[in-house]
Amino acid sequence: MNESADPECPFCRLPPERILQENRLAVAIADRYPVSPGHTLIIARRHVSDFFGLDAEEVTAIWNLLISQRRRLDWEFRVDGYNIGVNVGAMAGQTILHVHVHLIPRYLGDLPDPTGGVRNVIPGRGKYPFA
Amino acid sequence: MNESADPECPFCRLPPERILQENRLAVAIADRYPVSPGHTLIIARRHVSDFFGLDAEEVTAIWNLLISQRRRLDWEFRVDGYNIGVNVGAMAGQTILHVHVHLIPRYLGDLPDPTGGVRNVIPGRGKYPFA
Repeated sequence: MNESADPECPFCRLPPERILQENRLAVAIADRYPVSPGHTLIIARRHVSDFFGLDAEEVTAIWNLLISQRRRLDWEFRVDGYNIGVNVGAMAGQTILHVHVHLIPRYLGDLPDPTGGVRNVIPGRGKYPFA
Repeated sequence: MNESADPECPFCRLPPERILQENRLAVAIADRYPVSPGHTLIIARRHVSDFFGLDAEEVTAIWNLLISQRRRLDWEFRVDGYNIGVNVGAMAGQTILHVHVHLIPRYLGDLPDPTGGVRNVIPGRGKYPFA
């Protein structure tokens, strides 16, 4: 994809047909194992593992794709909410060590109780005060 | 906090002693119900509920506080990873309808299997391929 590319990294060699939208510093693709209909990834072009290692321009590029992919999803699906999330490091659940932001559409009734959203990265901590 | 303030919103009337760090457009506080030690929130100053309703300057301001709060947490705790996440809308688990970004430190052994991270907003979808 560019001079930082790692030949072993699946996000460094995305087939063009997987790319939904792109700009100079980031691309959007459909997640291959969607946790909900429309689950989308925004991926930095540069091969860097740590979200905190991006520069301001890259963050803006990702932000711009988040905005426009959200518009697409609102139009294609009946989305009721979104979780946006990033895992930084294997201990936080990151499996592909190339920065990607999850855009996860949420739907009325997809969970009996959606309270807490991203708090549920630690299961059972979504609700507060905790029992 | 500014002319957009909602008198009913807890993030519009944060007591100064809760503020860990601030810039012109955002503030950082410790989460009152931390899901892990060091759980921090970065909050837009402007009272707007939807993360997608921020402007580019506000996103940059939040990004800058994420970076420096991450540095603080790395120094104060023995952090092994981070989840960064935003809930957009009540159906995505948002409870305080004023934009806030969760910065959740993760620690070796805090879960038997951390795989998936923010994918776990839908419980059980953290691992893939799904059975």
